[in-house]
Amino acid sequence: MGKMLRVDLSNQTIKTEEFPRNLANKYLGGRGLASKILFDEVDPTIDAFSPENKLIFATGPLTLTNAPTGGRYMVITKSPLTGGIASSNSGGYFGAKFKATGYDMIIFEGKAEKPCYLFINDTTVELRDAAHIWGKTVPETTDILEAEVEVKSNVACIGPAGEKLSRIASIMNDRHRAAGRSGVGAVMGSKNLKAVMVSSGRLKTPLDDPEAFKAAVKANIKNIRENGVTGEGLPKLGTKVLDNIINELGGYPARNFQQSQFEGVAEISGEALVEKGYLTKNVACYACPIACGRKVTLPDGVVGEGPEYEVGWVYGASCGVNDLNAIVRAGFMCNDFGFDAISAGATIATAIELYEKGYIKKEDLDNGPELKYGSSESILYYTRKMAYREGIGDKMAEGAYRLAEAFGHPEIAMTVKKQALPAYDPRAVQGQGLAYATNNRGADHTRAYLISPEVLGIPEKLDPQDNESKPVWVKIFQELTAIIDSAGLCIFTSFAMQAPDYLALIKNATGFDWNEEEMMKTGERIWNLEREFNLRAGIDPSEDTLPKRLLEEPIVDGPMKGNVARLDTMLPQYYKERGWTADGRPTEEKLKELEII
Amino acid sequence: MGKMLRVDLSNQTIKTEEFPRNLANKYLGGRGLASKILFDEVDPTIDAFSPENKLIFATGPLTLTNAPTGGRYMVITKSPLTGGIASSNSGGYFGAKFKATGYDMIIFEGKAEKPCYLFINDTTVELRDAAHIWGKTVPETTDILEAEVEVKSNVACIGPAGEKLSRIASIMNDRHRAAGRSGVGAVMGSKNLKAVMVSSGRLKTPLDDPEAFKAAVKANIKNIRENGVTGEGLPKLGTKVLDNIINELGGYPARNFQQSQFEGVAEISGEALVEKGYLTKNVACYACPIACGRKVTLPDGVVGEGPEYEVGWVYGASCGVNDLNAIVRAGFMCNDFGFDAISAGATIATAIELYEKGYIKKEDLDNGPELKYGSSESILYYTRKMAYREGIGDKMAEGAYRLAEAFGHPEIAMTVKKQALPAYDPRAVQGQGLAYATNNRGADHTRAYLISPEVLGIPEKLDPQDNESKPVWVKIFQELTAIIDSAGLCIFTSFAMQAPDYLALIKNATGFDWNEEEMMKTGERIWNLEREFNLRAGIDPSEDTLPKRLLEEPIVDGPMKGNVARLDTMLPQYYKERGWTADGRPTEEKLKELEII
Repeated sequence: MGKMLRVDLSNQTIKTEEFPRNLANKYLGGRGLASKILFDEVDPTIDAFSPENKLIFATGPLTLTNAPTGGRYMVITKSPLTGGIASSNSGGYFGAKFKATGYDMIIFEGKAEKPCYLFINDTTVELRDAAHIWGKTVPETTDILEAEVEVKSNVACIGPAGEKLSRIASIMNDRHRAAGRSGVGAVMGSKNLKAVMVSSGRLKTPLDDPEAFKAAVKANIKNIRENGVTGEGLPKLGTKVLDNIINELGGYPARNFQQSQFEGVAEISGEALVEKGYLTKNVACYACPIACGRKVTLPDGVVGEGPEYEVGWVYGASCGVNDLNAIVRAGFMCNDFGFDAISAGATIATAIELYEKGYIKKEDLDNGPELKYGSSESILYYTRKMAYREGIGDKMAEGAYRLAEAFGHPEIAMTVKKQALPAYDPRAVQGQGLAYATNNRGADHTRAYLISPEVLGIPEKLDPQDNESKPVWVKIFQELTAIIDSAGLCIFTSFAMQAPDYLALIKNATGFDWNEEEMMKTGERIWNLEREFNLRAGIDPSEDTLPKRLLEEPIVDGPMKGNVARLDTMLPQYYKERGWTADGRPTEEKLKELEII
Repeated sequence: MGKMLRVDLSNQTIKTEEFPRNLANKYLGGRGLASKILFDEVDPTIDAFSPENKLIFATGPLTLTNAPTGGRYMVITKSPLTGGIASSNSGGYFGAKFKATGYDMIIFEGKAEKPCYLFINDTTVELRDAAHIWGKTVPETTDILEAEVEVKSNVACIGPAGEKLSRIASIMNDRHRAAGRSGVGAVMGSKNLKAVMVSSGRLKTPLDDPEAFKAAVKANIKNIRENGVTGEGLPKLGTKVLDNIINELGGYPARNFQQSQFEGVAEISGEALVEKGYLTKNVACYACPIACGRKVTLPDGVVGEGPEYEVGWVYGASCGVNDLNAIVRAGFMCNDFGFDAISAGATIATAIELYEKGYIKKEDLDNGPELKYGSSESILYYTRKMAYREGIGDKMAEGAYRLAEAFGHPEIAMTVKKQALPAYDPRAVQGQGLAYATNNRGADHTRAYLISPEVLGIPEKLDPQDNESKPVWVKIFQELTAIIDSAGLCIFTSFAMQAPDYLALIKNATGFDWNEEEMMKTGERIWNLEREFNLRAGIDPSEDTLPKRLLEEPIVDGPMKGNVARLDTMLPQYYKERGWTADGRPTEEKLKELEII
């Protein structure tokens, strides 16, 4: 759109700036370009909650286009959870609708004196008082703000978790969609910024070659529709299609990664969600032909969305709970309170292990229910306590790692760079483990989804226990994902689309004269820039690791029994593939080659 | 107070009438006197939903006094569930607050053309339009009505269940208190009467001898506080103090009375409600020193009251569910929808057995969850379907008996006179079984609570398996309970109070020159009048029975294993004690002796 907003919350001023087109050819947009701005403007050593931190909402060049899934936005900031760079990505409609008001990006700076929200429509951009919505949950906030305007609007906001600076708070948009990980919601809370509302945008993203773009869109929608994962599995069961698949593989961690299969999976799987009458209908994000979202009705009539595979797993298997009713409700609560649901559930799974091992005592629970595996009460009760920082919930709101550390046993936290692991056991899927360990935003599956080749065989089948092939695959996935994110698309497209497909969309939208190599180089540039931010922030490469349990204790059950995560054999090779030093630092040559310094 | 209201809903007129003092000496008040009015004014053979039926809200002479539990009101009408007399009794504050506006009773007649509610304060009585609250749940209705007036008000209303003429609908007051049984809420719905709101009443019940009354109150409060049940068990755990007691006895019916102990009791007992962090605080009805009510918070933060022992049992053990979270929530839903929770849960337990035996088919469920014992989803999902009469919920809304009949197997319904049995197995507690069988309002424990002598040893311990002693005890309990109800007190007082104690309160309040014999004779009169109403309504004495399962199939487990309900040995003796014919009809002499005819 060529313009971006710079909002100084301390002085309550708003400036419109030219979009830095000169950087787009190097960093594309969204995640890449916003990371570059953060890198240039923010001292990586500051406290994430200080007013000096910036919070950037960024769209990509394909946001607000008909490119399949072309509706995403990203939030970039320094993470209060990992201490490194945070870049969280979300779907729904907010991203596209924001861009339709004429801006590509918002940079929030400083800190408001009292709660406010940003209102944007096609004629007005202003900061408004948020006293009436402060303290409200995400759906309450959204309802109230929507009722204040007469046209259809879209709201991104924080809930109580973000307000109370929980390091695992998300930013929620369109009620059910999350810029989930790394605590971006807490940074928003630290700035006293409750919400961003966009309304009545009517602009469209200009395209360099509309006809060629249209043809590329058509071809890719066909690819997506004909693909087994994006055309059948995801539309049918959503991401919860994975429960049975990953459990059968033997990589479905139970009870905080103490087991790698869960005996209750049949009760809580995507299939159960249908059979037990929860699934109401499929829902799609902007421009998405996959529609993996699920509108779900609890048996008592409460309506919401999800849970995604990860969330169902973490509140289910990882907490030892086979009560689908409680699991789905816990997912709703995370959305309502504005939590990263993976981190919230993982914190409770950690608390349960701490309690069962005697490190958390009964008296620490203030008469709350006992933290036991399988307790429906616990997962709901402590999610609420965590949201309001009541009792032990105050420590929980800091996330799994800091909770375990506070009780003297950080080794119980299944985290990388203090961020909780998702639903794939790194001992079962070696490449995914390497991806967790080396991820710039801490443990996470969406910056390099190795499950795709290691389990689903896309683009080709890799042996999940092979280590040799993984470093180069992780590097390629990390870089291609950086491109997909920065473009404004969803990584689920990558089940059906290859690098040339993305290139066709990007070129015809932007007019960049890129070849595939240049595109992948951009991905590499983004990855290295993030890495450099983290190093300057003080994250030592020794944090490229996995919890000791996964490196030293072999899997005890299922087909992957006996395996550990063999990071020692993969990490040196990964650094080598990256052209980094043996201790994991980008060389000066590499940084210069990529024009980062 | 000396006045009563007669509200003609068809013509929307309201008359104030003199309270029939001449009848009070014979029928006391509340249940007794209102039953007499129903008996005199309503043809027992009419359809319960016809405008000719009347709906009477009645207080007793001790309502709105400091007598312990002196705050109750009763609802008397012809029941759409049993076809006989309904007299449901409720606590909270509504009854006392209604009386404080200056009336003892309201008689609703006819049928309003469109939804309305009755508003009463100390200057005004008027019918108001209820279009804005029709369709709303009980808490929604209460919230809306309360917001319409500036002073503290109390609302009794129906929810969706009553509006949709569910034969198991309750009338709810003060949000959580129910005039629960026999479908009184459906009669209210059939009259298009959504609610009664009382506001700003400031009157007090005149007392004949205030000083003597005060002394009697003081003595009885002392009795109540020093009694093990009313001074300790009920205040500590509420009625759910009984779960473990009745289960250990072997009379805690599981899976629709197929077993008599429940293996999951520890997970769902009153003790578990505390340990799992649900119990927030005790709550008391008007003037009650016991405070058996529980304010409860679900783990996700939803607040409500209960469940009572019966409700926890029926949604728990009788549905095979050991998930306390779902059970408590189901109880909340019954309150919100305006269901008799015992009947609602029993209908679902019946549906589960019908489904497990293949009488209800999968295709009858419209893609809803399978009706299985132990399914948290089912108890919540079908409670909701039943409230809105959706799918199979339409048949369920007719109650357990009619549901089982619709599927060709009425023997599966554990009902007496089409009303569902409460939480005590009649094969384990023989006297309670006789009380169920002979109760004028169908199966129910609150018109003669034989558990008191048979289990708790109050006023003396009876062998639960003895049959000889029970007929006379049942008769005495039925008559004393009729007095307690009619006076406006709660039967829980009877754990600590004896006939002379009630007599002292009644005499000093009313000035009646009664002795104990005359008081008990009044109880007998009320019982026989109800019986005569039922006989005239066409309820044959052959309906004084229990489900075939309980008469023929011995208990399969626990300490009471091998027993059936030996009604054949008790019923003839009971009829004899009552001075009725051998086939269970009050003789002309008896009716004349009691001045009924």
